[in-house]
Amino acid sequence: MNELDLWRELAIPGTTKLVLLVMDGLGGLPRPSDGLTELEAAHKPNMDKLAFESQLGLTDPVAPGITPGSGPGHLGLFGYDPLVYEVGRGVLEALGIGFDLSPDDVAIRGNFCTVDAQGNIVDRRAGRIPSEKGAELVQKLRPIRLAGIETFVEPVKEYRFVLVLRGKGLSGDLTETDPQLLGVSPLPVKALSPAAERTASLLNTWIDQARRILANEHPANMTLLRGLAKEPGLPKIPDLYKLRAACIAVYPMYRGVAKLVGMDILPPPATIEEEFDLLAREWSNYDYFFVHIKPTDSRGEDGNFEAKKAVIEQVDVQIPKLMALNPDVIVITGDHSTPWSLRSHSWHPVPFLLWSKTGRPDGIDQFGERPCARGSFGRIPAKSLMPLMLAHGLRLTKFGA
Amino acid sequence: MNELDLWRELAIPGTTKLVLLVMDGLGGLPRPSDGLTELEAAHKPNMDKLAFESQLGLTDPVAPGITPGSGPGHLGLFGYDPLVYEVGRGVLEALGIGFDLSPDDVAIRGNFCTVDAQGNIVDRRAGRIPSEKGAELVQKLRPIRLAGIETFVEPVKEYRFVLVLRGKGLSGDLTETDPQLLGVSPLPVKALSPAAERTASLLNTWIDQARRILANEHPANMTLLRGLAKEPGLPKIPDLYKLRAACIAVYPMYRGVAKLVGMDILPPPATIEEEFDLLAREWSNYDYFFVHIKPTDSRGEDGNFEAKKAVIEQVDVQIPKLMALNPDVIVITGDHSTPWSLRSHSWHPVPFLLWSKTGRPDGIDQFGERPCARGSFGRIPAKSLMPLMLAHGLRLTKFGA
Repeated sequence: MNELDLWRELAIPGTTKLVLLVMDGLGGLPRPSDGLTELEAAHKPNMDKLAFESQLGLTDPVAPGITPGSGPGHLGLFGYDPLVYEVGRGVLEALGIGFDLSPDDVAIRGNFCTVDAQGNIVDRRAGRIPSEKGAELVQKLRPIRLAGIETFVEPVKEYRFVLVLRGKGLSGDLTETDPQLLGVSPLPVKALSPAAERTASLLNTWIDQARRILANEHPANMTLLRGLAKEPGLPKIPDLYKLRAACIAVYPMYRGVAKLVGMDILPPPATIEEEFDLLAREWSNYDYFFVHIKPTDSRGEDGNFEAKKAVIEQVDVQIPKLMALNPDVIVITGDHSTPWSLRSHSWHPVPFLLWSKTGRPDGIDQFGERPCARGSFGRIPAKSLMPLMLAHGLRLTKFGA
Repeated sequence: MNELDLWRELAIPGTTKLVLLVMDGLGGLPRPSDGLTELEAAHKPNMDKLAFESQLGLTDPVAPGITPGSGPGHLGLFGYDPLVYEVGRGVLEALGIGFDLSPDDVAIRGNFCTVDAQGNIVDRRAGRIPSEKGAELVQKLRPIRLAGIETFVEPVKEYRFVLVLRGKGLSGDLTETDPQLLGVSPLPVKALSPAAERTASLLNTWIDQARRILANEHPANMTLLRGLAKEPGLPKIPDLYKLRAACIAVYPMYRGVAKLVGMDILPPPATIEEEFDLLAREWSNYDYFFVHIKPTDSRGEDGNFEAKKAVIEQVDVQIPKLMALNPDVIVITGDHSTPWSLRSHSWHPVPFLLWSKTGRPDGIDQFGERPCARGSFGRIPAKSLMPLMLAHGLRLTKFGA
C-alpha cells in the first residue's frame, strides 16, 4: 500500500496539539577551534532541557548523500516521499514570490536574455539587468493574450520572472527553451506527451509575441523559459492526517509549499519573535503548526558560523513561550543542513528532537548533531517524522488485528 | 527480488538451534518515580547476563509510528513484511478461538445485532447478550446449508461469533454488511472482484436463512458480518528457511498465526514454566522454536506496571533452563510495545537482544529500552530479525560469487 494511503487509513482526529519547528538549514559542520557545530556551540538552555526529555535522532531529508532543495526538504518533513512527490522548479519559483497558484496552473521560470540579429543567444542573462528594468519589461509582456486561458507575468529579481498559464486541461509535460549554450537560438517548447500539445502551442505563441514586444529593447530582447511545471496536486494534510494545519513563515516560498499540502497560511509575521506570538494567538484554532525559521539557512549560506549560532540562540529564547502553550508533541529540526563551511545546502543528516507526553526519553542532555547521532531514533528518513508525530499525539489507530 | 524469495534461495539446512522468545507487548514507558520502564525496572539477572553477551537493538514492528495488531506484530518477527502480507480480521478472529483454518476457507467476524420491524438496526451488539445466549444462537445457525461448500459457526464471546465457509474457489474479496450506523438496514455482501461473485451470493443466502431463524429471538434477531477474509496462503517457514519450526504458546491466536506460516503447533502448556519444560522436551525435534509469553501484554493492557514487571521476572527465572539446552541463537523481544501508561498496544520500538555463538557482543550489561537504543543493531524493522537469526545460526549461504 502507498504510504500516504496508509496514513489516510490510520489517522484519526484528536484534541492533541503538534508543533513542527523547522530551523531552515539547521545541520552544520565543526569549526576548527573546538570541533563544535553551529548548533552544538550555541547557548540554548531551553532546547537542551527539551532534548533531555526527548527522543533524539538524525534524518536524511531525501536519502543518504542527497542535498535537497527547499521543496523536497519540506515535503519530507510533511510526510511526503520527496522522490515520489516532486514539485517542479517553475512552481517553486512562483511560490517563492508569493504567487497564489491554483490546481489549473502551469508555472514557468523565465529569464530575459540577449539575442543577436540572427536570433542566436549572446547572453543568457541579458547582462543581469537591474530588478527595476526587469519589472518594467514584465509590464510590457502582461498584455499578451492566449486563446481560452489566463496568463500572469511577475517579476522575480534582475533578469528573472515567472510566467503562469491558468486554464483547464493544461499540462506541464514540456521541454525547456533554454539550450544552455551561446551562439544558438532558443528552442521551441515541445510537448512530451500528447496531452501537452495544446499547452506547448500556446507557449510558443506567447514566446513569439514576447519576442516582437522586446525586439527593440536592449540588452533584454528575448526570453528563455525553464522549469515548466504543473501545480502538483498533492494530497492534502487535512484529508491525509485529519489535522487542521497552519503555517507560520516569514518567507513566501515556505508558505507556498505549505499551501501545496493543504495548510492554512497565517498572515506572515516579520520576525522570529512575532512568529511565536502568532503561534500563541492561533493556538486554539489548529491541531498542527509548522513554524519556519529562515535565517539559520541564510547565515549558513553567508558562511557565518557566529551569526547562524546567534539565530539558534534567538529561537531558543522563544521556547518557553511554546512550552507555556502546553503542546503534546514537538519536533525541532531542519529541512536540510546548511553548514557554514560549505556556504550552501548539503547532504548531511539533520538533527532532530521529538518531545512528547507519550515518549520514552533518551536522557541525552544536549541538542546537537553528535548527541542526536546517539539518540534512540537512529537515522531515519525525514518522511518518518510526520507519522511519528501523529503516533505520539495518539492520532494513528492500530494497524491490523 | 522479493525478500522472501531471497531467503528461500539462500537458506540452507543445518544442525543449529534457534529460539525466538516473544514477550508479548514487551516494550514499555517510564514510570514517574525513577524514569524506568517495566523491563528496565525488572530484576532479571539472567537476561541481563545474556544481554552482556549479546548484540542489542530496537525494532519497528511495521514502520515508525505504526501500532501493530497481534497479526502484523508476529508476521514481522517471522520475517514477513506486515505491509505486504496481511492477515484479514476474520482470519485472526477464527485463529483466536483456535479454529483450525484450511487454505480453502473464508473466515468472517460475526455480530448478533437487533433490528426493528422495518429491518433497521437499533443495536449493533444486540444488547451485549451473555456468552451463553450467544452460544445457544450459534447452535441454531449451524444447520444452515449452502450449495457445494461446508459452513462452520463458532461462538466467540457475548454477541460475537465466527463464520467460516470452506470449499474450492471461494474468495475473501468482499464488502462487509455492517453499515456502522443505526437506523439503516444491514448491507448485502458485495463482490469486489468477479472471482468473488459466487462467495457473495452464498453469503447472502446464509444471511437470509439466518434472519429467518433468528426472527423471533430477542434482542439478537439479526447478524452483521465483518472482516471477511480468505486464509492468506502465506509462504511456509520449512520451505522458506529450511527450518523445522515449532510453536509453544498458551493462547490460541498465537498458535494460529504460527500455523499460518507453517510451524508445527505443540500441545498448549498452561503456564510459563510449562512452556519452558515443553521446550526442553521437544528440543531434539526442531531447529527453531517460537515461544510466546502472553501476560506481559495483558498486564500492560491492565495498566499495571508492577504486574508486567513481575511477568518479566517470572520469565527470567526460566532462562537457565533454556541455556542448559545449549542453543546456538536466541532472540528475546516483543511483537510490539504495550506500555502500562497507555494500557494498549503502541508504536514505540521494541527492545531486543540477539545472543549467539557467532556474535560480536556489545558489552552492554542490561536488557532494557534505553540500553537497546545504544546497541549495535540500531533501530531495524522487525522483519530483519529472522534473517539475522538464520545468519547467526549459519543457515544462510553466500549471496553472489
